[in-house]
Amino acid sequence: MAHITMLNLTVTPNVSVVRRAKLLPSRVNDSMPIPDFSKNDGLLPAIAQDAATGEVLMLAYMNAESFAETQRSGRAVYYSRSRQKLWRKGDDSGHTQHVKAIYVDCDADTILLKVEQVGAACHEGYRSCFFRQVQGSDVVVTAERLVEPGDVYGK
Amino acid sequence: MAHITMLNLTVTPNVSVVRRAKLLPSRVNDSMPIPDFSKNDGLLPAIAQDAATGEVLMLAYMNAESFAETQRSGRAVYYSRSRQKLWRKGDDSGHTQHVKAIYVDCDADTILLKVEQVGAACHEGYRSCFFRQVQGSDVVVTAERLVEPGDVYGK
Repeated sequence: MAHITMLNLTVTPNVSVVRRAKLLPSRVNDSMPIPDFSKNDGLLPAIAQDAATGEVLMLAYMNAESFAETQRSGRAVYYSRSRQKLWRKGDDSGHTQHVKAIYVDCDADTILLKVEQVGAACHEGYRSCFFRQVQGSDVVVTAERLVEPGDVYGK
Repeated sequence: MAHITMLNLTVTPNVSVVRRAKLLPSRVNDSMPIPDFSKNDGLLPAIAQDAATGEVLMLAYMNAESFAETQRSGRAVYYSRSRQKLWRKGDDSGHTQHVKAIYVDCDADTILLKVEQVGAACHEGYRSCFFRQVQGSDVVVTAERLVEPGDVYGK
């Protein structure tokens, strides 16, 4: 339900999304726009992977506007579902992502970014957001913190 | 909208999801179940990554039931949003995924599986679903097909 409500309140009017979509790579065939922002209410999951090491750093969401800006700027820009606005990764923390390559999946509804990560991708101060492993009925932290979140975002 | 409709029609009654959720690793602190299937209408994105090479193979979705079965069986089981039922990866193709490790992200609403992939992860016959790169306004196929889809799924 939150998903739907959020999109009604998006900072990007539908008309703008449609206009920007025309700037995107249009079609690999006649039937499917790439990426296809007509799916998932216009919000597609985007995986950020370290271009050098292959480590999966995080997953966030993109709308057509954030995708277009990512392409233009070469810097990862997502759409924050909680804040309901564009999220230029690193604006608060300095932990930006420089985009080296962009891939789309077979259904054109998931994006994969290969990035050069500055600092910690995770707001908890870890290099990757996937710093916890599920082992049976336990959850174990398997990575070391790079930075204290309080030092990055303020206390 | 499809997202909501699908969940109303899920093959797993709510009562079963709740019961199975008790089998899951419960909490890393007192406030957050891990993974947190109370988010995203009970359907969390799950990234499958090749445990040996680090290649990102695909993204699919899991509900509490598919996550619990994945843990029990050691084989990746997703929830198919289009078919609205559990999707035991490889049942049709033989291209199963043996799960080597399971991670959750900082918000406990994305899952990362490190898997041993049998054959092609992608129904298009590619090792990874991310076989297309977006280059400016072009979309370029950057991988080779391992198998012809017709040979795997029938013509």
